[in-house]
Order: sequence, then C-alpha cells, then structure tokens
Amino acid sequence: MKFCCQCGAPVELRIPEGDTIPRHVCVSCQTIHYQNPRMIVGCIAEWDEQVLLCKRAIDPRRGLWTVPAGFMENGETTYQGAVRETLEEANARVEIGMLYALYNIPHINQVYILFRARLLDLDFSAGAETLEVKLFREDEIPWDQIAFATVRNTLTQYYRDRRHGEHKFHMGTIEPIKKI
Amino acid sequence: MKFCCQCGAPVELRIPEGDTIPRHVCVSCQTIHYQNPRMIVGCIAEWDEQVLLCKRAIDPRRGLWTVPAGFMENGETTYQGAVRETLEEANARVEIGMLYALYNIPHINQVYILFRARLLDLDFSAGAETLEVKLFREDEIPWDQIAFATVRNTLTQYYRDRRHGEHKFHMGTIEPIKKI
Repeated sequence: MKFCCQCGAPVELRIPEGDTIPRHVCVSCQTIHYQNPRMIVGCIAEWDEQVLLCKRAIDPRRGLWTVPAGFMENGETTYQGAVRETLEEANARVEIGMLYALYNIPHINQVYILFRARLLDLDFSAGAETLEVKLFREDEIPWDQIAFATVRNTLTQYYRDRRHGEHKFHMGTIEPIKKI
Repeated sequence: MKFCCQCGAPVELRIPEGDTIPRHVCVSCQTIHYQNPRMIVGCIAEWDEQVLLCKRAIDPRRGLWTVPAGFMENGETTYQGAVRETLEEANARVEIGMLYALYNIPHINQVYILFRARLLDLDFSAGAETLEVKLFREDEIPWDQIAFATVRNTLTQYYRDRRHGEHKFHMGTIEPIKKI
C-alpha cells in the first residue's frame, strides 16, 4: 500500500497513537488503513463413501487437487460462502453440515474454515477455475497431488475420524515450509 | 474506496472478467481491490464459576459490557489474537481452550470467533479501551447492558451448556435489528 484509497495522498507506515502495530496512515487525511486476515471457506462434499475434489485450473498449485473452497465475500455467512464456492468451482449443489476444520495460516494471513457437506446430486462439472471434478474413495485420493497442506490434513483427519466412527471438529496451525 | 492504493489513480466499480461481483478496479494500473469480511477473536475467560467481562471505553457501545475480543491481526492465529485482545483490554492472562462459538454477521462483514479460556491469575485491570474489568457469576451478569448480540447469545448458551454439564460448539448468524 502506497496511497490512501480515500483521498489519493501518499501513506506512511507508523504506529498510530494508542496502537502497538505499524499501520499505513494517510499523510493528508490521516485515515488509518488496517489490514486483516482473510477467510477461505469451503467444504468436504460427501456422496456415499466418496468426496468431491477439484483439479485447479489457476495458480497457485495449478493442476493439483483440492476441496471446493475460496475467499469469503462481504455480505455472506461462512456457510453461504462454502455453498457458493462449491457451485462456482464444481457446479455442484451441497447441503452444509457441521464445521469440520479451522486452520490458521498466519504467515499468509489466512484462516481456512471447512464444513462437512452432503452433495445433493451427481450433476457436477468443472467451473471456470477448475480443470476437472471427480468423486474419490479413500484409496483413490491422489495424496501426492493435493494442492494445500490444509486440505491434506483435513482429508487425513476425515478418514481417520471415519474409521473411528465419529467426526470431530479439528483446529490447527499451518507453519511455512522450511527450505533446507 | 475512491483511489488505487498501489498507484494513486482513481478506481471504478465494475465486474472484472471471469468474476460475478463488482470490485473496485484501478482505471490506470488495473489492480483489482478485493474487500473481504474481518474476524473478531476473543474468549470467555473463566475463573471458578465466574467469567471476565469488560466495560467498553470506546464506541460503538461505550459503557456496555462485553467479553475481551477484537479484530484479528495479520501474522497471528485465531487463538493468539484472543490471547492478545484479552491482554490489551483486560491486562489479563489466559490459556485458550476449545472453540466455543462462531457467529456470522453478514450485514457488517464480520465473523466472531470466541474460545473458552482459563484465566491464569486475578491480576487484571482495565486496558486503554476499557473502563472496568470484573468477574461475574451467572446471576450477576448485567444482561440488559451487554454490548453485542453475539456476546449475549454466547453467554446465554454458555450458562445453558453449564447447566447441562457439557459445553458444545455453537454456530449462528446475527441478523440486523429491524426498526419497527
């Protein structure tokens, strides 16, 4: 951020009075521009013993598989966002169930919020940001081609829970990958 | 938003190609400025049968009571945010427990995320944005002076759960108050 989105004057990075964190503050109108984490909302869409995965048509991680999920929009709830993303990415209709996972990813200022969901019909297809949509049984999941750590962790936990006969809410934090 | 925070040129509101929602797009550098909901993170800090409430020193709802909570910051997790807010507002140290409530407030683009927490000592006091900090038993809670619907709902549910001997995660949506 270099300019004030309210008046167009330059911003400077400084700690406002009464605050503890440097913020972008307009040198002219003094507006403080806060920046906050964003939520990614999505779901594990279930059909019998299968779950719906999407092969990404866009970066990051083009060509890898993920659950339907994306940035939550203003004016919607977390579940409405998950339903919308599933419709956009997989042209699929779901009924949202329990909150299943919340993952913090502090190094990229994101929080993943994933629900369990019931796929309502088999009339799905790839949306504009998706190359392919497919249902997978546990032994068919392409574990080495999953796009994100959040999704890999959630699916691993999901099948572990299923073997134990009880789905529980999971919470965790994803650390950056350390290059050796 | 009137100006591009990257280059200072004016922005216009239009639906970018491949999108479905109007966004602020820079007329010069074409940067698309997305706006997304923000998270409020906080906790129900428990001490025996009491919970910690803060009387707000700032607007909105100055003079009314709430649990320690505030906007989640970049670079932190939801629990770190709840710990930080409790320290800032009540000078109180807590150990975060289970995720207790998630409330969507779509008309103001917010998601409330509240944890149960254990207050670690009684050495608390009002922070800069707080007039007074106090522990309350259920029959002492100032129900008609609670600042926010999310907090009133969460505390109501909290005591109901306690009577049933089991605390469960709660999720809901707060609708705008309709003026008659």
